[in-house]
Amino acid sequence: MHAAVAPPHSPREHTAAHAVRMQIRGGMLAATTSGLAPGHVQGNLAILPQSHAADFLRFCQLNPKPCPLIGVSAPGDPHLPALGADLDIRTDVGRYCVFRDGELVEEVSNLHRLWRDDLTAFVIGCSFSFEQALTEAGLALRHVDMGVTVPMYRTSIATEPAGPFSGPMVVSMRPYRPREAIRAIQICSRFPTVHGAPVHFGDPAEIGIADIGRPDYGDAVEIRAGEVPVFWACGVTPQSAIRAARPPLAITHKPGRMLVTDRLNAEFAVF
Amino acid sequence: MHAAVAPPHSPREHTAAHAVRMQIRGGMLAATTSGLAPGHVQGNLAILPQSHAADFLRFCQLNPKPCPLIGVSAPGDPHLPALGADLDIRTDVGRYCVFRDGELVEEVSNLHRLWRDDLTAFVIGCSFSFEQALTEAGLALRHVDMGVTVPMYRTSIATEPAGPFSGPMVVSMRPYRPREAIRAIQICSRFPTVHGAPVHFGDPAEIGIADIGRPDYGDAVEIRAGEVPVFWACGVTPQSAIRAARPPLAITHKPGRMLVTDRLNAEFAVF
Repeated sequence: MHAAVAPPHSPREHTAAHAVRMQIRGGMLAATTSGLAPGHVQGNLAILPQSHAADFLRFCQLNPKPCPLIGVSAPGDPHLPALGADLDIRTDVGRYCVFRDGELVEEVSNLHRLWRDDLTAFVIGCSFSFEQALTEAGLALRHVDMGVTVPMYRTSIATEPAGPFSGPMVVSMRPYRPREAIRAIQICSRFPTVHGAPVHFGDPAEIGIADIGRPDYGDAVEIRAGEVPVFWACGVTPQSAIRAARPPLAITHKPGRMLVTDRLNAEFAVF
Repeated sequence: MHAAVAPPHSPREHTAAHAVRMQIRGGMLAATTSGLAPGHVQGNLAILPQSHAADFLRFCQLNPKPCPLIGVSAPGDPHLPALGADLDIRTDVGRYCVFRDGELVEEVSNLHRLWRDDLTAFVIGCSFSFEQALTEAGLALRHVDMGVTVPMYRTSIATEPAGPFSGPMVVSMRPYRPREAIRAIQICSRFPTVHGAPVHFGDPAEIGIADIGRPDYGDAVEIRAGEVPVFWACGVTPQSAIRAARPPLAITHKPGRMLVTDRLNAEFAVF
């Protein structure tokens, strides 16, 4: 890599994210990217053919809280220079899920065989960014403390449909005492492009969650006396909408194996 | 008034606040200032002798959420030019309460007779400022809709003591649905110098409120199904601390009869 292709943002911080991508590209890292390249934005990945790309882009723009777009490739172009000068979406994610007509048909380690000239890559912000901000502010993450995946729930909150893309908003849940929840709302409001402020707190039934102890994705976590569940729009929402839309081809990251970008979480703070 | 004493802030907007003060000064307005001079900051007033002024200043600085200082006069100087070029604290509040040794001894319409060279005036931000921001964001105020005074409660949250000043934090309460409460937290976070974000939501017992239907000050308001009570630090806190400290002399505004300043609420927004 030479100076002409250096990323525009914080070259000093570039090493950690670049190094993670190089490890993934070299086949040396296929596990979760949680905690890797601290401070760097990690993203959810969705790749769709031209037939569905315009509708999906519109779906994201209509539903910015669950689907905060942080990068879109040109059709057929596997690079997203705004997220990393050398970034290649065909090789830089640890594990890919391939869906045909809405059904998972295989998992692959790279997209060399599957890439086509009509594919568009969408990168969507991820809760790791605001979780870092919460942790830095001294707010604990129960699922991290318990060593499990954050609990996620399908809700009765409908997304705005666009073409074949529709369905319920999926939310993630973190329990906090009210005073902590107020601080969490302030902190997450600084990051509107990575899900932003919570969408709900308190009574789960109000957003159609029948049993807080039985999440639809991830693992249940303890809610202690004096704590209330706080709910954030979740990047699983677009993945759920894609599966329901049953496009002829869709490729996503495998949960937990995110795209590690050169962008810094701090760049996404609006104030 | 000539150009040399024009206020530094928004001279175009000056007329409304100045006009209200002139009416009050002329004895033509002694009722509540709620809704007057829209957009202008209104303040709580506390006047203390030199013997107590330094401790009270420290009390405010230790407890910025219930006691957000927006102006302090020089000892013996009845003017606060930062809040209004012509402002005279002896005449520009509609009704004053006079306390001696912590007991209310009289109400007066001006301080010409009572003013002394060792008195310091403290002006403390007021909820009218963030209530305007909430209303402008489309969030209703239940107490306004019901035509009553906002309900206020003594809590189990202790203030940081300073000299003789101490006591429980007093909070005001406004009911909202969780989604509205999240928005209210965002909006009020922009105004840290007028009480800022709420200090609590949900279970009143957690902050020592035994019966939400029986406020210690103001009037009870309806909390509808799906709503949670949201609690803000309240400017009654310092007034309560002053009465408990029993200074030989203390003068406050009569509730609802605030000091109307030339400052704009918008000036106090931090982002």
